[in-house]
Amino acid sequence: MTAAQLRAAFRTGDTRPTAGLAPGLAQANLIAVPREWAYDMLLYGQRNPKPCPVLDVSETPFTPLAPGADLRTDLPLYRIWQDGTLVGSPTDATPYWRDDLVAFLIGCSFSFEAALIAAGIEIRHIALGRNVPMYRTDVPCRPAGRLHGEMVVSMRPIPASQVALAATISARFPAVHGAPVHVGDPAAIGIHTLDQPDFGDAVPVAPGEIPVFWACGVTPQAAVMASGVPYAITHAPGHMLITDVPDTKYQV
Amino acid sequence: MTAAQLRAAFRTGDTRPTAGLAPGLAQANLIAVPREWAYDMLLYGQRNPKPCPVLDVSETPFTPLAPGADLRTDLPLYRIWQDGTLVGSPTDATPYWRDDLVAFLIGCSFSFEAALIAAGIEIRHIALGRNVPMYRTDVPCRPAGRLHGEMVVSMRPIPASQVALAATISARFPAVHGAPVHVGDPAAIGIHTLDQPDFGDAVPVAPGEIPVFWACGVTPQAAVMASGVPYAITHAPGHMLITDVPDTKYQV
Repeated sequence: MTAAQLRAAFRTGDTRPTAGLAPGLAQANLIAVPREWAYDMLLYGQRNPKPCPVLDVSETPFTPLAPGADLRTDLPLYRIWQDGTLVGSPTDATPYWRDDLVAFLIGCSFSFEAALIAAGIEIRHIALGRNVPMYRTDVPCRPAGRLHGEMVVSMRPIPASQVALAATISARFPAVHGAPVHVGDPAAIGIHTLDQPDFGDAVPVAPGEIPVFWACGVTPQAAVMASGVPYAITHAPGHMLITDVPDTKYQV
Repeated sequence: MTAAQLRAAFRTGDTRPTAGLAPGLAQANLIAVPREWAYDMLLYGQRNPKPCPVLDVSETPFTPLAPGADLRTDLPLYRIWQDGTLVGSPTDATPYWRDDLVAFLIGCSFSFEAALIAAGIEIRHIALGRNVPMYRTDVPCRPAGRLHGEMVVSMRPIPASQVALAATISARFPAVHGAPVHVGDPAAIGIHTLDQPDFGDAVPVAPGEIPVFWACGVTPQAAVMASGVPYAITHAPGHMLITDVPDTKYQV
């Protein structure tokens, strides 16, 4: 299916997570905040480019990254936030959209998974047909105005012999989180058990594999929670915007 | 001289352009605008990352890129703008600073010149002890809010056999303008004569050399002019902030 066909399916009720879909096309996290918070969010991205690489900013629910797409309907699942609290998870954000919202599209690590697979690295959550496991950490982001919070990471188990290769390949994609932020011991970044991810689905780590952690575009949602942002609409973790932009556009 | 010693010299009246000084340390363009224009400027940077790569944003005249430096005094030469018009070129911006100014530090191509020289590429303006030649082009930037304008470029003559090498090396530094935006015919980007740069000093292009153009951090000054920004303080072209950050921090 093309990106446009997948977006049409999401528009009409398909709520699948998007890992592994439309390989070769970049995917993006969504966070829309009131105009009055947009400067803080943009600055949060500038100061935390690893978890929050800003790919596009739009004062409408449309983006040049996916011409024809409507950001209010064309992601599989949304989250609605009030005063930092999750208040809803609709499949259609249209009734919740406000004219004063500014939409930020943030790079997503799904965008380099096709390159990892092409290099012979198994992506466990894709192999198992699951959402990627994501974890809150105790690694603080650099605050910006009223926004603060900790980094969220995604985890992929990688055979020890392929960790360097996975790091090297993903490093070539700095706009979609780039190289891992941590390799190995989850406790070192405040993760107590890999079996219970904060978002997405758990995946098994086999003997001889190392958990490898990449910065994740759910990080702005952690900032929304920690900072009590009065109103926000985001994607549900793992349920991304599929853009029309080839992955290679973000490859250095 | 160390970066701190050079900044001290600029603080006490040295007005030299900074190309070739403190090789191995990153340099930065300065543009400070009223808080009310800061979102537009940050978005202009996000939408035009090649000419306007934002390295730091500060609501004070201080920056973690150069601890101990004062942005009001430690650049060799400044420009003061009112309603898009140049109204002064002081060596000390302290009397002009306002509490509502937000300072943007933008990457500078001087930061990869040491790497080019190390690869055996002569940097003509450094060899001749001149400021780099800079030109206004007819290449539009992507507007952001009230800000619009054309790209400004710097030019270095490069022997034809070294153009690919210069492109490859500078491409590894995307945060300080990265690879060239144009190679060859100046007229193709709206430059009518290389002999009369809009900013900086002319340098000779020898037979067998190609003029190579890199995006330039004077681009926000062109936006200030084109957009009639009510007030701004910038560096004078070629007279940069010398930071304490090694070039290699910005190398991919």
